[in-house]
Amino acid sequence: MPEMERVRKTPLRNAGVLNEPVDYAHPVSFSRGLCVELGDWIMLFVSGTASVNERGESVHPGDFAAQARRTFANIKALLSSAAAGWHDVVRTTCYIADFRYYDEFNQVRNEFYQAEGLDPLPASTCVEARLCRPELLIEIEALAIVPKERQAPGRES
Amino acid sequence: MPEMERVRKTPLRNAGVLNEPVDYAHPVSFSRGLCVELGDWIMLFVSGTASVNERGESVHPGDFAAQARRTFANIKALLSSAAAGWHDVVRTTCYIADFRYYDEFNQVRNEFYQAEGLDPLPASTCVEARLCRPELLIEIEALAIVPKERQAPGRES
Amino acid sequence: MPEMERVRKTPLRNAGVLNEPVDYAHPVSFSRGLCVELGDWIMLFVSGTASVNERGESVHPGDFAAQARRTFANIKALLSSAAAGWHDVVRTTCYIADFRYYDEFNQVRNEFYQAEGLDPLPASTCVEARLCRPELLIEIEALAIVPKERQAPGRES
Repeated sequence: MPEMERVRKTPLRNAGVLNEPVDYAHPVSFSRGLCVELGDWIMLFVSGTASVNERGESVHPGDFAAQARRTFANIKALLSSAAAGWHDVVRTTCYIADFRYYDEFNQVRNEFYQAEGLDPLPASTCVEARLCRPELLIEIEALAIVPKERQAPGRES
Repeated sequence: MPEMERVRKTPLRNAGVLNEPVDYAHPVSFSRGLCVELGDWIMLFVSGTASVNERGESVHPGDFAAQARRTFANIKALLSSAAAGWHDVVRTTCYIADFRYYDEFNQVRNEFYQAEGLDPLPASTCVEARLCRPELLIEIEALAIVPKERQAPGRES
Repeated sequence: MPEMERVRKTPLRNAGVLNEPVDYAHPVSFSRGLCVELGDWIMLFVSGTASVNERGESVHPGDFAAQARRTFANIKALLSSAAAGWHDVVRTTCYIADFRYYDEFNQVRNEFYQAEGLDPLPASTCVEARLCRPELLIEIEALAIVPKERQAPGRES
């Protein structure tokens, strides 16, 4: 099947903010996010993102609010690598390790979205789930959609 | 970044059926759903929806089947606010508080989809998860896609 | 509402590999996947898929790696029924019954993606969740997007 018959996909990356998990020599195989071009639109699929840093270390163990803020910031960093931001997010799925953090979660999210000036707010689902490392307390997946015209001309070629 | 370079997004609402959670003064920040215009298509991202009423109260505590029916009806109400319905749903994610309700879930869903005359049926994933309030036993997220031409002329402006 | 105003949707099926759950006479109502036509693009929504065979039986109870391989193969079979493959997958959601299988999961996924030659890798989220049958240890949902031109001329009519 010729390459041209595939949708154009490029990874979302921001290695200065959170590490790249993608490496066939190491057994974790996913992209931090995927930028998918569909004619006039670009869909940005952001993988489940947690409070990790540029070396892949979990940060803020035991501090839910700090982890939540880092998670929102990590997603912002991934989106910004594709000239996008939280304004473009249409849907999130939020996994919280324990619902006793739910109020804290809503407070942080509320503050973050207010600071970003989001209106309307994204659609969202939030459930409790255990995450891949015991110290991680929150993980968020997001979908953003941006018009292709947003892209800088230099990216078009 | 000029406003015109964003995808056009409007919230899904049906305040007569289920409450509006969106309020920056209150720490719950999401839309019940988001209507996203992509050229000839409109994507309707319905947030995780449970058995709540127009005042935001959980209804039918302890009665899984009644909660499931209310959840399907709530989503129907949200979709109808955008001239859409369950026929337009392409995917659901269903969270059930305990899989001992699984048979009941399938029975209610079966009856509901049959009454709606759905064919083909949506793609779906169903897993067990704790939900944001202990009395809620089911939460469903949905994605619907409708042709832009469906929209009434009055909405176009 | 006339039929023409709906998005064209057809089920994904591969009855030789995994069974069809869809039957209004039986209380499990979903499609294994849904093929949705959106102008120049086709979105393939693959339902949560586990290690089941063409008779709907769970296979490889107690063997996580074998279940994972079967799950990846089942999704491949569903995608192939629409002339698509793992190269077209943009996002997965992976549910693992217990995170003590996480290393094994990553190893199997790594091997599978490497064998398929995927580059870039799909976006992905992975959380722990109980699945609909106690013997099932992994379930994966996927979204693939293919250009309409991929479709064989015979399918167009």
